Amino acid sequence: MASWLPIPSKSHFSLANIPFGIISTSSQPTHRPAIAIGQHVLDLAAFAQNNGFSKISDFPSDKLAVFSQTTLNDFAGLGRPVHRATRAYLQDVFRKETPYPEILKDNEALRKQALIPIGDVQMHMPLSIGDYTDFFAGRNHAHTVGTLFRGAANALQPNYNHLPVAYHGRASSVVVSGTPLHRPWGQVLPNPQAKEPVFQPCARLDIELELGMFISKGNKLGAPIDVNNAEEHIFGYVLMNDWSARDIQQWDPWVVLADALEGFRGKGLSNDVPPKVYLDEKREDRILDINLEVTLTTAKGNTTKITQVSSQNLLWSWPQMIAHHSVSGCNMRTGDLLGSGTISGLEPGTQGSLLEQTLGGKQFVKLEGGEERKFIQDGDSITITGWSGTADDGLVGFGECEGTIVAAVPRD
Amino acid sequence: MASWLPIPSKSHFSLANIPFGIISTSSQPTHRPAIAIGQHVLDLAAFAQNNGFSKISDFPSDKLAVFSQTTLNDFAGLGRPVHRATRAYLQDVFRKETPYPEILKDNEALRKQALIPIGDVQMHMPLSIGDYTDFFAGRNHAHTVGTLFRGAANALQPNYNHLPVAYHGRASSVVVSGTPLHRPWGQVLPNPQAKEPVFQPCARLDIELELGMFISKGNKLGAPIDVNNAEEHIFGYVLMNDWSARDIQQWDPWVVLADALEGFRGKGLSNDVPPKVYLDEKREDRILDINLEVTLTTAKGNTTKITQVSSQNLLWSWPQMIAHHSVSGCNMRTGDLLGSGTISGLEPGTQGSLLEQTLGGKQFVKLEGGEERKFIQDGDSITITGWSGTADDGLVGFGECEGTIVAAVPRD
Repeated sequence: MASWLPIPSKSHFSLANIPFGIISTSSQPTHRPAIAIGQHVLDLAAFAQNNGFSKISDFPSDKLAVFSQTTLNDFAGLGRPVHRATRAYLQDVFRKETPYPEILKDNEALRKQALIPIGDVQMHMPLSIGDYTDFFAGRNHAHTVGTLFRGAANALQPNYNHLPVAYHGRASSVVVSGTPLHRPWGQVLPNPQAKEPVFQPCARLDIELELGMFISKGNKLGAPIDVNNAEEHIFGYVLMNDWSARDIQQWDPWVVLADALEGFRGKGLSNDVPPKVYLDEKREDRILDINLEVTLTTAKGNTTKITQVSSQNLLWSWPQMIAHHSVSGCNMRTGDLLGSGTISGLEPGTQGSLLEQTLGGKQFVKLEGGEERKFIQDGDSITITGWSGTADDGLVGFGECEGTIVAAVPRD
Repeated sequence: MASWLPIPSKSHFSLANIPFGIISTSSQPTHRPAIAIGQHVLDLAAFAQNNGFSKISDFPSDKLAVFSQTTLNDFAGLGRPVHRATRAYLQDVFRKETPYPEILKDNEALRKQALIPIGDVQMHMPLSIGDYTDFFAGRNHAHTVGTLFRGAANALQPNYNHLPVAYHGRASSVVVSGTPLHRPWGQVLPNPQAKEPVFQPCARLDIELELGMFISKGNKLGAPIDVNNAEEHIFGYVLMNDWSARDIQQWDPWVVLADALEGFRGKGLSNDVPPKVYLDEKREDRILDINLEVTLTTAKGNTTKITQVSSQNLLWSWPQMIAHHSVSGCNMRTGDLLGSGTISGLEPGTQGSLLEQTLGGKQFVKLEGGEERKFIQDGDSITITGWSGTADDGLVGFGECEGTIVAAVPRD
């Protein structure tokens, strides 16, 4: 799929992708939707207001105002067939042999207004999150961490293979890539035998490599979502770093639509336990296949790739997480965020947390320049990247999720 | 404090109270703020639009639009001094010797428009909740339940007296009083030795008597709230039933402002563990003193008071919960809901859950009409009430929080 717009072959934002985000510019500070395409973004507010969508079909004509909102919630709430039609239409608009050259390719005025160099935009929270639920679907991670805490015989809790375990997190503390984070304070036991906890900045600050997923259409209280229809409730995906102080989640600002990743799937980890009926997904290629990488850059400027792993290292699929989440009748709403849990392989260099790579802080991870780490130090920056596909066919990537830890806030 | 408006002496909504809620009426379905006063509500949208607030001082004059919103969030976000001024002004408006008779007492047109019989209004969610955090501050409950599960020697977890333990809940599944609830489905172990869980409707459905608290002004990420300033971040309180399937919280629809309860306080439960500096609250009357009652009405119509207990049965105060919640730098937002955890005494008839009253389902609670219960049955209705003060001085009460359990949704 070639475009009339120059797109570098290694760009995460090929014509095969079309991720959605929320932008502002210095000349126009209002938050508004955009897509990323190569080294540009298309301002969807300007595009919509100048008849950019006049040739689209399968889009409710009275809903174009979703592109003038300050978040993607209203667009997400229109449901997956509308997202599919919108992505396909925008691909057509940018295709070299576009059927609609008058819309943008030959419309210099609109190109000047709506097509903005990606370096000139500020990115913002793409959706307003109602609730955030973090799953624990990375079985390798669960097994390795469980072994550290309880020994290999009891590594996995008895329910682990029966249902997707999750915890409820805080929507308020989800931040976008680039936000610097203070090391958190907390009460900790100085050693396992201690009776008296100590109030101090977190000494074992860690990362957790995850994928995040946004709900498009929700469900009513008391009305569970069928596992084999759950895909239709998915809006899209982001890369996520679940900073392990457990109260800050950081993500990349571009949401890759579910349809863009539809061709990149596999069987994931296998489960010997037969699924309960409500978790019994018919398709076999249940698990997304995304290449994930984590790099650590120290305050001295040394950058080391510390993790390279496939998202196939998950036991539970997104539809299974959705089905389990709603099976009690629990309602989900447009914009709710679900996390996959830490994605890890079993080998060194494939694990998505330092806890695993250092065997619980017992050994160092070696970094470039002779540096080493057990946990994250002040000034360390973590960057997560992820992509599917090939340069030939066009990459479907997420861009970057970056966060730097700064010193704890001083206290008395 | 007497009013020119007849207020029954046993009304929860005396002139000493002035609770806030969100109403609609059949003739005007738009959701809008109101206060409850005796057997009436005052429609604050109509009141504000007809110069009802023209004599108020200490209220930002450009913010009167908060009374035309569909939730109380904007009003809550103005901060406690404004809530205090608003409550005091409305008390003056309704006082027998009101200094402003022209505002409402002698303004028949506005009385007819804005003063509505309480039976004629529908109540709605008073605030849009960003995040919901449920604490576990009722030490008697924690001790009794811990004894059931782990024996008396290990009843309390080691951290219990050191910090206010909490879990993060879902904002989506908080519902107002009167909403009927389906019995939830879930995977459960049929007995402690079983290897294979069973998917079935919850067999041990329970209630948890709690107080809920709403945040007025929040805090920024990385900026903790001082325990001795935390009162200023409290908007008000509601009664809450944390249905023990752990994913539905139900509350009464009237929010009692923090100032209305300021005179009803005590020392609460004592703690032998000296508090860390960030939890060291200077005032001694840290814990609210509210009379709480739970009644159970069966499908046959028998009503039994099953719990009578004071809210003094808490170990941690709301300012301590706020301080602990934010100490890591975690941000809270206007409209966030915090739950107290189950409030229980140690004696039969004072415990806020059936789990405690039945010793984990080992004995029955006797009900009127010869009925008995270990856990909640389909058709059972639970009503929580709560109030402080006396009929002479005017009750400060919450009204009722009611919920009825209906059968689980049928599934294949």
